[in-house]
Amino acid sequence: MNPIALDDALASFDALWSPRIVTHVNDYDVRVSKVEGEYVWHVHDDTDEFFLVLDGELHIALRDPDRTVVLGRGDVFTVPRGMFHKPSAPHGAKLLLFEPTGTLTVGDRHDEIPAHVDATTGHAL
Amino acid sequence: MNPIALDDALASFDALWSPRIVTHVNDYDVRVSKVEGEYVWHVHDDTDEFFLVLDGELHIALRDPDRTVVLGRGDVFTVPRGMFHKPSAPHGAKLLLFEPTGTLTVGDRHDEIPAHVDATTGHAL
Repeated sequence: MNPIALDDALASFDALWSPRIVTHVNDYDVRVSKVEGEYVWHVHDDTDEFFLVLDGELHIALRDPDRTVVLGRGDVFTVPRGMFHKPSAPHGAKLLLFEPTGTLTVGDRHDEIPAHVDATTGHAL
Repeated sequence: MNPIALDDALASFDALWSPRIVTHVNDYDVRVSKVEGEYVWHVHDDTDEFFLVLDGELHIALRDPDRTVVLGRGDVFTVPRGMFHKPSAPHGAKLLLFEPTGTLTVGDRHDEIPAHVDATTGHAL
């Protein structure tokens, strides 16, 4: 029941593509994540996913139609449910995410999961 | 379906305590708000309310027990459902909020609403 500094939360772990849950809002999580390099194509069939870039630059490749959105620091984007997407961050980024508690990072359907990807519903801080 | 820069969203309006909806996540809103001075004591009976300070400093007075949390830039806090609270920002602040679509800014129960307070479920950008 105290405020949490996102910088402190992000400084408390090093793992990439491995979000930490900073707080809950009803049955939603607020998560922070450090990312760099390529993630995996995946889709959340039943939920939208919200991204806020806290630092760095995030690319989100999308299918149907194929395109890539690029988010800089302070930019937000919601990937609609049912849309395949692949985040990447060539030079690294720090993110804040909103999604329902229990949402798996790799979605309901996904390409083969590479070794560097942590398939998780989020870790405690 | 394009990223939104929070700075641009915040630059698009001047009204204080009058949130704009920047995107939806399922049946939740992501809102931004400019605040300065005192808000009104209120409570959301059925929902938590998430605050992220994008700039400035936000004070949130809470009841039962009585105390005030102070959020600087990059700090987050969730006011639990059922807890009376009164935000204030003596020197101004810019906020990002996450709450269910339709949530009224002044909650379900509140003190008398001063003239400078916009009782709204959020405005379109």
